[in-house]
Amino acid sequence: MIIVMQFGAPQEQIDSVCAVIKERGFEPLVMPGEDRMAIGVPASLSPDDRIFLEAAIGSLEGVSKVTQTSSPYKLASIEFHRSRTSVQAKSATVGPGSFSVMAGPCSVESYDQFKKAAEVVKKSGASILRGGAFKPRTSPYSFQGLQEEGLKIIKQVGDEMGLATVSEVMSADMVTLVGEYVDILQIGARSMQNFPLLIEAGKSGKPVFLKRGPSATIDEFLLAAEYVLSQGNPNVILCERGVMPLDRSYTRNTLDLAAVPVLKEHSHLPVIVDPSHGTGVARYVVPMAKAAMVAGADGVMVEMHPDPKHALSDGSQALDVSGFERLMSDLKALAPAAGTRL
Amino acid sequence: MIIVMQFGAPQEQIDSVCAVIKERGFEPLVMPGEDRMAIGVPASLSPDDRIFLEAAIGSLEGVSKVTQTSSPYKLASIEFHRSRTSVQAKSATVGPGSFSVMAGPCSVESYDQFKKAAEVVKKSGASILRGGAFKPRTSPYSFQGLQEEGLKIIKQVGDEMGLATVSEVMSADMVTLVGEYVDILQIGARSMQNFPLLIEAGKSGKPVFLKRGPSATIDEFLLAAEYVLSQGNPNVILCERGVMPLDRSYTRNTLDLAAVPVLKEHSHLPVIVDPSHGTGVARYVVPMAKAAMVAGADGVMVEMHPDPKHALSDGSQALDVSGFERLMSDLKALAPAAGTRL
Amino acid sequence: MIIVMQFGAPQEQIDSVCAVIKERGFEPLVMPGEDRMAIGVPASLSPDDRIFLEAAIGSLEGVSKVTQTSSPYKLASIEFHRSRTSVQAKSATVGPGSFSVMAGPCSVESYDQFKKAAEVVKKSGASILRGGAFKPRTSPYSFQGLQEEGLKIIKQVGDEMGLATVSEVMSADMVTLVGEYVDILQIGARSMQNFPLLIEAGKSGKPVFLKRGPSATIDEFLLAAEYVLSQGNPNVILCERGVMPLDRSYTRNTLDLAAVPVLKEHSHLPVIVDPSHGTGVARYVVPMAKAAMVAGADGVMVEMHPDPKHALSDGSQALDVSGFERLMSDLKALAPAAGTRL
Amino acid sequence: MIIVMQFGAPQEQIDSVCAVIKERGFEPLVMPGEDRMAIGVPASLSPDDRIFLEAAIGSLEGVSKVTQTSSPYKLASIEFHRSRTSVQAKSATVGPGSFSVMAGPCSVESYDQFKKAAEVVKKSGASILRGGAFKPRTSPYSFQGLQEEGLKIIKQVGDEMGLATVSEVMSADMVTLVGEYVDILQIGARSMQNFPLLIEAGKSGKPVFLKRGPSATIDEFLLAAEYVLSQGNPNVILCERGVMPLDRSYTRNTLDLAAVPVLKEHSHLPVIVDPSHGTGVARYVVPMAKAAMVAGADGVMVEMHPDPKHALSDGSQALDVSGFERLMSDLKALAPAAGTRL
Repeated sequence: MIIVMQFGAPQEQIDSVCAVIKERGFEPLVMPGEDRMAIGVPASLSPDDRIFLEAAIGSLEGVSKVTQTSSPYKLASIEFHRSRTSVQAKSATVGPGSFSVMAGPCSVESYDQFKKAAEVVKKSGASILRGGAFKPRTSPYSFQGLQEEGLKIIKQVGDEMGLATVSEVMSADMVTLVGEYVDILQIGARSMQNFPLLIEAGKSGKPVFLKRGPSATIDEFLLAAEYVLSQGNPNVILCERGVMPLDRSYTRNTLDLAAVPVLKEHSHLPVIVDPSHGTGVARYVVPMAKAAMVAGADGVMVEMHPDPKHALSDGSQALDVSGFERLMSDLKALAPAAGTRL
Repeated sequence: MIIVMQFGAPQEQIDSVCAVIKERGFEPLVMPGEDRMAIGVPASLSPDDRIFLEAAIGSLEGVSKVTQTSSPYKLASIEFHRSRTSVQAKSATVGPGSFSVMAGPCSVESYDQFKKAAEVVKKSGASILRGGAFKPRTSPYSFQGLQEEGLKIIKQVGDEMGLATVSEVMSADMVTLVGEYVDILQIGARSMQNFPLLIEAGKSGKPVFLKRGPSATIDEFLLAAEYVLSQGNPNVILCERGVMPLDRSYTRNTLDLAAVPVLKEHSHLPVIVDPSHGTGVARYVVPMAKAAMVAGADGVMVEMHPDPKHALSDGSQALDVSGFERLMSDLKALAPAAGTRL
Repeated sequence: MIIVMQFGAPQEQIDSVCAVIKERGFEPLVMPGEDRMAIGVPASLSPDDRIFLEAAIGSLEGVSKVTQTSSPYKLASIEFHRSRTSVQAKSATVGPGSFSVMAGPCSVESYDQFKKAAEVVKKSGASILRGGAFKPRTSPYSFQGLQEEGLKIIKQVGDEMGLATVSEVMSADMVTLVGEYVDILQIGARSMQNFPLLIEAGKSGKPVFLKRGPSATIDEFLLAAEYVLSQGNPNVILCERGVMPLDRSYTRNTLDLAAVPVLKEHSHLPVIVDPSHGTGVARYVVPMAKAAMVAGADGVMVEMHPDPKHALSDGSQALDVSGFERLMSDLKALAPAAGTRL
Repeated sequence: MIIVMQFGAPQEQIDSVCAVIKERGFEPLVMPGEDRMAIGVPASLSPDDRIFLEAAIGSLEGVSKVTQTSSPYKLASIEFHRSRTSVQAKSATVGPGSFSVMAGPCSVESYDQFKKAAEVVKKSGASILRGGAFKPRTSPYSFQGLQEEGLKIIKQVGDEMGLATVSEVMSADMVTLVGEYVDILQIGARSMQNFPLLIEAGKSGKPVFLKRGPSATIDEFLLAAEYVLSQGNPNVILCERGVMPLDRSYTRNTLDLAAVPVLKEHSHLPVIVDPSHGTGVARYVVPMAKAAMVAGADGVMVEMHPDPKHALSDGSQALDVSGFERLMSDLKALAPAAGTRL
């Protein structure tokens, strides 16, 4: 921790800062800076020490800013876990060495619709089947999903096709229920900081597919993963799905593709990109999925609907069958040059 | 609903759009535009109709954009509820005609700390006592609140002082528990789109203090309120608490004060401003609270701690006792010129 | 300057950083941190030293981040210029002790229109007359202003009414021309980082009204002011006019009112708020102007048009005559409680 | 143009809107909507008509919003110019069919430095040499470039190596000067809405390399291009270089890669991506350049410095020689799978 004083802060203000540090049991190091003083706390601080000192010093007079020098996340950090993590779900592996495609409709609408989608997914060589049963919808008047009925369809179709499945869980008290039906628990962008849910998903031990919130910084995203990891569950998959856009005229979100190398540099967890929500437009899904592959992502999640024009949610961003087949064939063609395989 | 076609869209594409509209039972109105055609659906559409048509038409070739002409929220809209709403909690009323101050520490830390804060609040004439028992914290290693023990302290102190109380509830399954101890359920910014929580808070019938999410548009915010209202609970208080900042060097968020007149123009619900989280800096709380008053807000929520330097959370944005007393005296002096009263 | 190393950076990487610092003539101070090393440069660095070291060290292996401890701006900083600046233009003074109102139409359209506006401005007690002659317009097909003809009208009307005038200058080579006709040179939000223009405006010695860019941080804003100041021109007025909005449905920008106390805390320059561009909606101008006053601004700039419905630009955000008169009367009523005067 | 009325707007308000439309010479079309009225103007409007009507109607009572149905840009739009544009500079062609690499140091620092960079660029097969002579720098105390001396070096080296050159011009009055020395005029992100500069660059007839502003919407970006095009200069190259970031801890900007397919869908102009400024970190340049290629960009601009640790500006984002050679070899390997060639 480094405390930078205001220009011209008198000695008694510097002394006050040092006193707080000493009171907590550490030895301050006063360092003359360019035009002001800085005070370091050269010690290994516990999280509680860090929080205490930050609050106690931050409100003292003469203090300009308090900077943490250490990473706020530990279990998610590659600094402390040098080998990259792979997450296993049924026969599917998400992680280094291969490129995972998770596909399926935004919402499960019926057994027939979902089975048809699953057949396309399976045939194309994608490894994980997605489908929403509980749907977080901006308006209370929008279709809210088939709920438990949808979960049953997911489980049945997943079993019939031998595909691992992923579906969203929206609250802590639903983790057990959803976990009985699906292989991977999805935590949506709007739930990224639903801490009780993160803790419960952590306790479940099941693979967790964690989407980045639309205004989440990289640190906030990795701290959300840290919540899951800190419950003893190492099976976290990160998903970049677009951040708040500059304007909403052409895309629904701004896909932050540079987050892929950033996350790979700072974390050992696998990173998936969702170009469907990341752009909100089916036509942009193929180029952005290919971009994700060459940028180093471990896979993509895409929305595919056998009949997007009649989808009950998010039809405008779903690929239809031929669009999805083209995506898979493009990704397969690109994989060798990208140093990966499908 | 108005559909704008791409420039030069041929007649058969226009016909396709019209066919979808007719299939759903409505009569399209084709309108030549400046350099392209527009197609209106001049009818009263149910939410399901609207969603269906938007998805079905949005993915057709030749369609440039689909615009909704009606407001997505109804119960929250002043268009359909011309008189302004007041929300009652114990003896406190939040709404037009007076300016409510909700104050207290970020976290309840002990009976003594909270009682001391409550005495300052009461003495100063503020009407509602706030305090966090369940704390949403970005890091799993930060203090998470006293939890149910904190709720008991809130209830005891609230009863002793005759003050209405507000505290955050973080998940749907905790609504009943928290509702037994406090008068107003707070839904935090990060939970604004926790839809199961909104629904459960709606079912409880208790006053709901709903904070705007850091990247929420006005429509998303009012739709979150609509979730609560649609459960038959009219007691919703809106809270602007700052949106995602341009940079984080000087303030923690960007307080969007113009949201006050915007929300007042479009909704009948009371609007509170939280300058503590909105800026993250105790020194800016007083000017921003005063600005909120003259901008037409129905009140403010501020963090006040008897000893901010030793607060377990958010110490740098909490007012101390004398800072809070100055806030109250400034607000009282300003109230007549602002056309309100404390 | 403080350099934070990556966790586990080996001694040779630390040595490399120290070598660069020594090569430049400074003595590094190595400081063990919580879980990594930090290296300070405890010396007074020239700007060139700082830039050199930042680039040279920033690209070394093992370096996590390089933090400047000193403020990047000097002349604009209150740390080095403890008394607040007032800017004089004709008989008008902008700065502490009074609240300045700058008003007039977005564009000068004719002598009659501008004269009529000026009469309203004068009568109401506002001190500075604004009007655009050269108009920065997003589209090349929009009205671009009366140009030099407009400047002549501004000068004539300003002289006739005894009002100081302000008008925008869009490029360095126009500074002399515009400066011959108006009392205060306005540099628009989109020109905030037009560095040749800033330098030329600095050289002119004339009062400069500098608007914050829509995505400018506080540091970038004050560094833009620093460009003007560094040419020996102390007459800079800062203007907060709204930053990039979350969505554009209800307001054109997000007025960042907390920038007022932030700027006042870090700079000695006067701060004006522009609620017309800050919201883009005439109905929100009055509440936001009042909020600016109580937040500590030194004044407001507002658009007023004798006939907004027939304005050639920005009609939807301009107050009409009665709206402007209400604004002035509201501000006068509020001034005593806000501790200022009009 | 479509005007949507507020819910319950009485007939006289609808009549007022129609009266304005008729007064301007058009026939309004009143259309009952879902729960409110909409009024269309089914006619081909001139830009002046559009601006007039928008302002005149936007401020009428009862009007909820005014929507333009036509694209605000024409010459930049692919709707009116169906074949894609290629821009020629010396022997280099930027446009469909090949992937252009523009490379060189941020700043020209000396003949030797620039010549060395040019040799690397030439040898690797890149076609365009970049280098800054006039540098827009956030701080007045940063290195401002070698100015005209730098231009002379650029010209000399470009001639010696037979490479087309690109360099930034910062103001309208410098267009002629810079145009004498370089083949392509760069307009930087901070100048994207420097309208006098856009007009002058348009008049020059020279190829213009136009960078997107950090907070510019797609429409604003294409309207900036429209300024150049409207002067009769068809040689505009668009450049996505990152938009304002959510946070600045890990990248300098957020590279909006989906802007590539968006721009390609709406405009015929070539689109280049700048991953150096787009991320601000040399390590992320290679993955983002490859992502740009597969996303459909016509090329990339990257910063390369023979000795980045001693660069006078932006050293931390510049590739060194071996990094640049790896970039070129990666791009060449990827080109066939991406359907392009270097």
